[in-house]
Amino acid sequence: MSQAIADLFRRITCGVYVIGVAVGERHNAFTAAWVMPVSFDPLLLALSINPRHSSYELLKQGKSFSVNVLSREQMDVARHFGSPASTDKLASVAWRRGRDGTPLLVDALAWFECELTGECPAGDHVLALGRVINGALLKPDAAPLTYRETGDMDGAAAIFPDRFS
Amino acid sequence: MSQAIADLFRRITCGVYVIGVAVGERHNAFTAAWVMPVSFDPLLLALSINPRHSSYELLKQGKSFSVNVLSREQMDVARHFGSPASTDKLASVAWRRGRDGTPLLVDALAWFECELTGECPAGDHVLALGRVINGALLKPDAAPLTYRETGDMDGAAAIFPDRFS
Repeated sequence: MSQAIADLFRRITCGVYVIGVAVGERHNAFTAAWVMPVSFDPLLLALSINPRHSSYELLKQGKSFSVNVLSREQMDVARHFGSPASTDKLASVAWRRGRDGTPLLVDALAWFECELTGECPAGDHVLALGRVINGALLKPDAAPLTYRETGDMDGAAAIFPDRFS
Repeated sequence: MSQAIADLFRRITCGVYVIGVAVGERHNAFTAAWVMPVSFDPLLLALSINPRHSSYELLKQGKSFSVNVLSREQMDVARHFGSPASTDKLASVAWRRGRDGTPLLVDALAWFECELTGECPAGDHVLALGRVINGALLKPDAAPLTYRETGDMDGAAAIFPDRFS
């Protein structure tokens, strides 16, 4: 039934992103799907992040995050930044620092730079609200990778509960 | 430039949903794209809603909302529930009430029933957090409609700001 609920949630359409965080010389990046626009004025993106994730502290301290949009051709990049962090995952990828120091992937389809403006507890995650201070569309003709296309790459099917409660 | 920022935000992948709300015999439904999962345990969906929208009061009072997932074949349904509410938009569509009375579309690809568990201000919108108490996948072989496929049906391009600030 965990699989049935996972299958159902796969019908909520999401993209695939590499989220970048940084504090001074420290930086990290990880794959995430739970990102969406939430406000026009100010221009806000919401990111749902697990507060036990090692990057959460960097996000809190750096008060900023980048959202790098992956294209359909970047499944390998999604997998790379979705693997457990044992080494510096950014070491093997072309990137540069944004205004707030957050990592921007040179080969992303697009990127956004966000300043953390608020947080909201959301079950086992935290919703981070980011004011978009800058953005660029690098590959206008590329199709964004959808979360559904990644199958169960992140192992989420096993995390979904067995039943509604 | 409003168009340029709208184009950029189109790379954040979202689906298209009909959100249902109800209080007693009163009910309403409207098209929305800003919906995503935000927590596994409890199982939560977040909906970003404009608090000036007429359905917001019903959502607050009813403390629940439904999320009906539209398929690629239901652009007309997205348009119907996205038009200004002058009449009962549900009158011409097959639907039934869920456990909390919220409208479930009989022809949806899938639906979720959510109990409002919290709210979070998010710029000119409010993030409504809904605990998923029930759900069903009605058309497993249909492809969900993506927001990007609807073009500028909702006129959002004109709402995006001219520049980052």
